[in-house]
Amino acid sequence: MDALFDSTDSVRNSNPLKFAREFIYSSPVKLECGGSLSEVRVTYETYGELNERKDNAVLICHAISGDSHVAAHDETDCAGWWEIMVGSGKPIDTDKYFVICPNFLGGCRGTTGPDSINPDTGVRYCLDFPEITIGDIVEVECLLIDSLGITRLLSVIGGSLGGVVTLEWATRFPDRVLSVIPLATAAHMTSQALAFDIVARNAIQCDPNYLGGRYYEKGVVPASGLAIARMLGHITYLSRESMMKKFDSTKNQARKFDTAFETKFSVGSYLAYQGGKFVERFDANSYVVLTTAIDNFDLGSTPLELCRSLKRSMCRWLILSFTTDWLFPSFLSRELVNALLATDKRVSYCDIPSECGHDGFLLPDEFEIYGEMIRSFLSNVSYELLKGGAVQIDRPDRLDYEQILDLIPRGAKVLDLGCGKGGLLARLRKRGGCRVQGVEIREKYVLCCIDRGLDVVQADLNDGLRAFSDHQFDFVVLSKTLQTVRDVEFVVDEMLRVGVRGIVSFPNLGFREHRYRLMNEGRAPKLEFEAAGEWYNTSDVRFLTLADFEDFCNKKGINVHHCIAIDTKQQKQIDQNPNENADVVILVISK
Amino acid sequence: MDALFDSTDSVRNSNPLKFAREFIYSSPVKLECGGSLSEVRVTYETYGELNERKDNAVLICHAISGDSHVAAHDETDCAGWWEIMVGSGKPIDTDKYFVICPNFLGGCRGTTGPDSINPDTGVRYCLDFPEITIGDIVEVECLLIDSLGITRLLSVIGGSLGGVVTLEWATRFPDRVLSVIPLATAAHMTSQALAFDIVARNAIQCDPNYLGGRYYEKGVVPASGLAIARMLGHITYLSRESMMKKFDSTKNQARKFDTAFETKFSVGSYLAYQGGKFVERFDANSYVVLTTAIDNFDLGSTPLELCRSLKRSMCRWLILSFTTDWLFPSFLSRELVNALLATDKRVSYCDIPSECGHDGFLLPDEFEIYGEMIRSFLSNVSYELLKGGAVQIDRPDRLDYEQILDLIPRGAKVLDLGCGKGGLLARLRKRGGCRVQGVEIREKYVLCCIDRGLDVVQADLNDGLRAFSDHQFDFVVLSKTLQTVRDVEFVVDEMLRVGVRGIVSFPNLGFREHRYRLMNEGRAPKLEFEAAGEWYNTSDVRFLTLADFEDFCNKKGINVHHCIAIDTKQQKQIDQNPNENADVVILVISK
Repeated sequence: MDALFDSTDSVRNSNPLKFAREFIYSSPVKLECGGSLSEVRVTYETYGELNERKDNAVLICHAISGDSHVAAHDETDCAGWWEIMVGSGKPIDTDKYFVICPNFLGGCRGTTGPDSINPDTGVRYCLDFPEITIGDIVEVECLLIDSLGITRLLSVIGGSLGGVVTLEWATRFPDRVLSVIPLATAAHMTSQALAFDIVARNAIQCDPNYLGGRYYEKGVVPASGLAIARMLGHITYLSRESMMKKFDSTKNQARKFDTAFETKFSVGSYLAYQGGKFVERFDANSYVVLTTAIDNFDLGSTPLELCRSLKRSMCRWLILSFTTDWLFPSFLSRELVNALLATDKRVSYCDIPSECGHDGFLLPDEFEIYGEMIRSFLSNVSYELLKGGAVQIDRPDRLDYEQILDLIPRGAKVLDLGCGKGGLLARLRKRGGCRVQGVEIREKYVLCCIDRGLDVVQADLNDGLRAFSDHQFDFVVLSKTLQTVRDVEFVVDEMLRVGVRGIVSFPNLGFREHRYRLMNEGRAPKLEFEAAGEWYNTSDVRFLTLADFEDFCNKKGINVHHCIAIDTKQQKQIDQNPNENADVVILVISK
Repeated sequence: MDALFDSTDSVRNSNPLKFAREFIYSSPVKLECGGSLSEVRVTYETYGELNERKDNAVLICHAISGDSHVAAHDETDCAGWWEIMVGSGKPIDTDKYFVICPNFLGGCRGTTGPDSINPDTGVRYCLDFPEITIGDIVEVECLLIDSLGITRLLSVIGGSLGGVVTLEWATRFPDRVLSVIPLATAAHMTSQALAFDIVARNAIQCDPNYLGGRYYEKGVVPASGLAIARMLGHITYLSRESMMKKFDSTKNQARKFDTAFETKFSVGSYLAYQGGKFVERFDANSYVVLTTAIDNFDLGSTPLELCRSLKRSMCRWLILSFTTDWLFPSFLSRELVNALLATDKRVSYCDIPSECGHDGFLLPDEFEIYGEMIRSFLSNVSYELLKGGAVQIDRPDRLDYEQILDLIPRGAKVLDLGCGKGGLLARLRKRGGCRVQGVEIREKYVLCCIDRGLDVVQADLNDGLRAFSDHQFDFVVLSKTLQTVRDVEFVVDEMLRVGVRGIVSFPNLGFREHRYRLMNEGRAPKLEFEAAGEWYNTSDVRFLTLADFEDFCNKKGINVHHCIAIDTKQQKQIDQNPNENADVVILVISK
């Protein structure tokens, strides 16, 4: 097979499960939709060692066509579907963690599903297999976890359908998970994604060999229907960008092979090949059962419902989406993040810049970012469990940070907008007693914060703070960020809605050096902040003096409670004529 | 039928074609792929009257499942698929224009297609119907136009597949079209869109009733395959946003009716209904023939190939895309626009902000913008034909415009970046002798320019001027726009690459009033330009003095040829100490 056909799909190859074990639960299992199973078998694989305290277990949840074989067990073993992520020294480090990966209930890779023999009848379930939910999948996984003697999982991690399963874990068994990492997933499907699943199921169910699901008995397979479903799936796993790269330049260079499907174009021969391969290893009824389960999944489609569902969660969260994923688009991850923030959960989030679409979480392209985020987050969860929080402080010379610290009493809830590498938040956490949350737009800084054990959510301030409810924080800090914000009125309004008090610091254009430069030299002032540049490339887009800001507050009915003026070069506080003598000002405001 | 089922789909209803006429071409027609037809019949409808000069004819091209019935002919007639656009007083005004809408070759609504009787055999063509191209469709339309005695069409207009047909007209018969308006279309399909067509054709061809296309003989129809193809099509016609609005709140409230398809979810019952309805009125072989024709269409997938194809076009262009269209995404329209600009064609372009996806061009939601653009453009094409160009001048007080005008010799090619309502361009055109092109980001200003008969392309300067080749223009103007641009270095580099000379004007922060305001009042200067605001809401994000800009030019190796300094309040030119005495400066630069 050439690279075109296998590159993104190697992660979904079918492998012999020679290291798989089987767990048999021989009592009846009641299901959420009313059905029951008189016995459940679970095929699973494990990696690494469970420690004595049994607190290093990480559960990995596969995507729809995945299985228990997440990684190779030794050199003789074939690669798993998340080989880049799981193993010795890898982000999910099997030297540190005990990794468990079961096949899902309803699947066809060893765990009880529609193609299993029904012990009550001695023949395959077919469509007698009862309707299952994501909740049922998690209940069965929990039976397995019980059997391993694990009270609480260090983390539950998964993408796509596997991500949905992590969400269910966090809300169904809140006291049994210390953290979750849902990737490329959502609390509910978009109507568009639902529609694709429906068309796929219709293609399967209209195949004359489907026989209402009883095709096993007749020795046939609804091959064309299942293959068409898989072709459709493949389109949704890739992004438009990745399809362009893969196929645009070779549009008419189709690979010819024996297939009943159209192979006129290169993309057509790719789809025909993937469809055909899928039929060899996957069961049509499992496809119907599992897609129906995810289609029915709904943790809440309004912010209120979502908050209600997530309120019971007690774990730490790291949520990752991928910018070009249009099957589980980023805004759905943000909905989750927003509901978690609104209910005061500890959450970090990043929208990973990627061209790979939904498959992004399986592929090496952006692994340097998302792999490191997962590694850092897991390390911190593990470290906190052992020793409690501990963070490093950088830049001890930041007088403005010390001043802001003095303005915030212990016990306060603090939101830092544009938190950068987390300098202020780390100080607050080190001092102790504060609940702190950061918001930052640059992913490299988000990674820095996660690495420091801070909770940080990637967002653009210009989009507002919809995630937060009125007066959710005691203090909202906008430290040296105001001058980079395009819609100042909106951002200030939002910070004073969300915070009882706002703390704003910015460079003061009224500072004497700036005045003289324009007056005497006829040159635009340089605000000389951290990333200071020339007039044509500075990130500063707003120019204001302390007096301008006071006018603004006056006009907008904003109260100014404190004003601290600093001359940063002399490292001292200014009392006289601050609009002329201070280059940085800090104000405490409210509405 | 409730609104849910019919709202966006009413435009695709099947109607009796009681006003349709038939044109029969009884000589053999040779086809591009080597086949031929010994006779071709074309079903078409016309509206309005052809004038004596026969120069008011507008050809409308339908989308894949459309037909000749573009609008109602009288009160007794049923609505057409573009009722909002075509009629008395509407943008394509049947009081002014003679509108012709034929059904396409290969279709199934009257024009010769696979379900027509082959005159050579006396039975239906089925799969003996030869492979056709978009070129063949246009050749047949041209036979019709010939038969009506029309030498040159005032315009060819169409969206989606119809848009592709307009592109073919512009390049195949350059001397027979005065203008084209391609909507929601592209010079080639994305691999993603191609993939959807392939899955749709596979669904049809795998239907056991398809019988290799010979289903007519057996009296059966590949109903489930065609319905699945249509379901898939429907998903791609809507945007994710419009599907959310339509279905999210009623996810589980499916409409129950008699169908073999899944109707568990509301979106499923919608798709099942649309799929079923389509089977009643469309022919599966036509679907295969027409989708294959568009899938093979390729005016050029590299900029060079595209330029080569478009070079022969001689008409004026108005290209419109729709922001949420992911089947024919906006960047493909931009590729067309870029190639037209690179080959010095007269083109206007706008990316219409819309939530309606690909269907945007059929729906009333954004009609106020795109309808008016089409109306204005057509009026101007028609007016130019009669009287040559004529434009209105506004704001006679703009001294800076007059100064810039003096800097540009007659005969020069001029590009105006951030051209606004076209004030400068209109002056240049009125003076005459210059080839002028505008670039503007705000669609309301794009409409103003189109209304004035100017050629304007919507684009964000921060994305650069990739459309243009080196030194394509004699002058590139950046008039009072520099201070709103985020990446100044990049934009200036680009303007000096594309233009032999650049003309930059901007507000001078060094002007004495600005200096005094900061020095004496301690307030940020207000540049007081057209859309001047306070420091927190001005669109100005760059602050520079004339001296700063001169330093910049010096550092970057940019030559300054002229510098005109103006005191706009006193309406006079400044010679002494311009960095202090001028509030606006104009520089002619080159690299």
